[in-house]
Amino acid sequence: MIRVADNLQVVNPAIAGALERRDPEPIRACVKRCEAAGAQAIDINAGPCRRDPEGEITFLVRTVESATRLPLLIDTATPRAMAAGLHAAENKPILNGVSLEPRKLETILPLAADADVDLVAYLLGPDGHVLADADQRLAAAVALYNAAVDRGLDPNRLIIDPVLVPLTWQGGTAHARAVLTVMQALPDLLGFPVRTIAGLSNLTSGAPATADRGVAESAYLAMLAAAGLHMVLMNVLRQESVKTARACTALRDGHVFSWAELGGGLVK
Amino acid sequence: MIRVADNLQVVNPAIAGALERRDPEPIRACVKRCEAAGAQAIDINAGPCRRDPEGEITFLVRTVESATRLPLLIDTATPRAMAAGLHAAENKPILNGVSLEPRKLETILPLAADADVDLVAYLLGPDGHVLADADQRLAAAVALYNAAVDRGLDPNRLIIDPVLVPLTWQGGTAHARAVLTVMQALPDLLGFPVRTIAGLSNLTSGAPATADRGVAESAYLAMLAAAGLHMVLMNVLRQESVKTARACTALRDGHVFSWAELGGGLVK
Repeated sequence: MIRVADNLQVVNPAIAGALERRDPEPIRACVKRCEAAGAQAIDINAGPCRRDPEGEITFLVRTVESATRLPLLIDTATPRAMAAGLHAAENKPILNGVSLEPRKLETILPLAADADVDLVAYLLGPDGHVLADADQRLAAAVALYNAAVDRGLDPNRLIIDPVLVPLTWQGGTAHARAVLTVMQALPDLLGFPVRTIAGLSNLTSGAPATADRGVAESAYLAMLAAAGLHMVLMNVLRQESVKTARACTALRDGHVFSWAELGGGLVK
Repeated sequence: MIRVADNLQVVNPAIAGALERRDPEPIRACVKRCEAAGAQAIDINAGPCRRDPEGEITFLVRTVESATRLPLLIDTATPRAMAAGLHAAENKPILNGVSLEPRKLETILPLAADADVDLVAYLLGPDGHVLADADQRLAAAVALYNAAVDRGLDPNRLIIDPVLVPLTWQGGTAHARAVLTVMQALPDLLGFPVRTIAGLSNLTSGAPATADRGVAESAYLAMLAAAGLHMVLMNVLRQESVKTARACTALRDGHVFSWAELGGGLVK
């Protein structure tokens, strides 16, 4: 299970300021902190990139690549920024991502197909809304698979995100269960071992200050791992969750369990 | 997911001494501590009961029932002790347990069938040895199911234990994965939602002193929960693991997630 840092976000004022000033240092520092904490890939959450989509994403991608050799995910809802980020990256990035929203299907799917890069596909409705249950999510997965094949993207390039929502939402627990169900059903449904990703930080977003977020996040992360999750987008500065991710990887994917591995001693 | 305390063990010198002296207080104190820590059932691990099987188990069962109203598991390899414990218990206990060992099939299975009580069935070989992989465990499950039906025990009375072994054993990680596979496959294999149990403390038994047992135990517990585990036999004094079990139950079985539940505030 690959740990992708969700910590580099333009909504973070320190990162926004650095982007504004085109100051690479705070961005590089954030990336290095994530890598030291156990990140195995970095999501560049560039937000809308409204002022100068091409310039902003190019600066972000080049700055991150100057700080790490980890794989990158380019995370933006702006097709122009996605194209520029893909162009700017030295190594093939993962595009994050597409959904059944027509605007994204028409712009971001072709970008991934033509560049033959990995593409995160969100199980959302054509209106961009969260789907009600596991069945609707699975129907969206089939539609996205068909769209990918039609546009010439190798389906092995897809990384499906079943869309986790906060537990504090109405029906939040049912959504958490639906995500596990979807995760388990996808390989049989699509007929190949399709990769999956989940945005773990969403689960405890908006939880009360007194809540034991760490326990809920770690427990659900291990449940996702048991359901077959391939990549987890997470706050890698929560060391309890990183330790849990390491333990799950060792227990699920390892040949020999190593206690040292939990602490990051043997395997990053 | 029901949390069963594995803390009441006759191998514990304090419990052995109390049993020897027929002093109920240390046993009652242990049970009360487990209940306060979140136990939902108590396993009375009576060991071999060599000296006075009937007298020892009768004392243990009556002492525990005087301290708690939680359900009991009578955990002994001695058929005479099992029969006496079943007779002594005021409320129907769970017998823990049977396996394909002929001696147990011939004595403990009939006890459970005639009394119509729940019976833990271990997926071990006829020689009592741990089985090599998931397939052998599943074959043992079918054999135990058939034995139960033949002897007139309602298969819904079975609680299957796929037998978890220490990670430090050779192939320990592969066993941990096999247990998850068995857990997921059993309902389809047997054709009904058969209940399952796992002995969680085995996982980290013998781990080095420096090992982060808590992380491994919590992560694997949540993986078992995702695979459908019904009852977990555990050290309930490890609060991290109890919190994880609560979180998994809330996430998997709850209608509405409650942060208070993690701390035991709403649901025991």
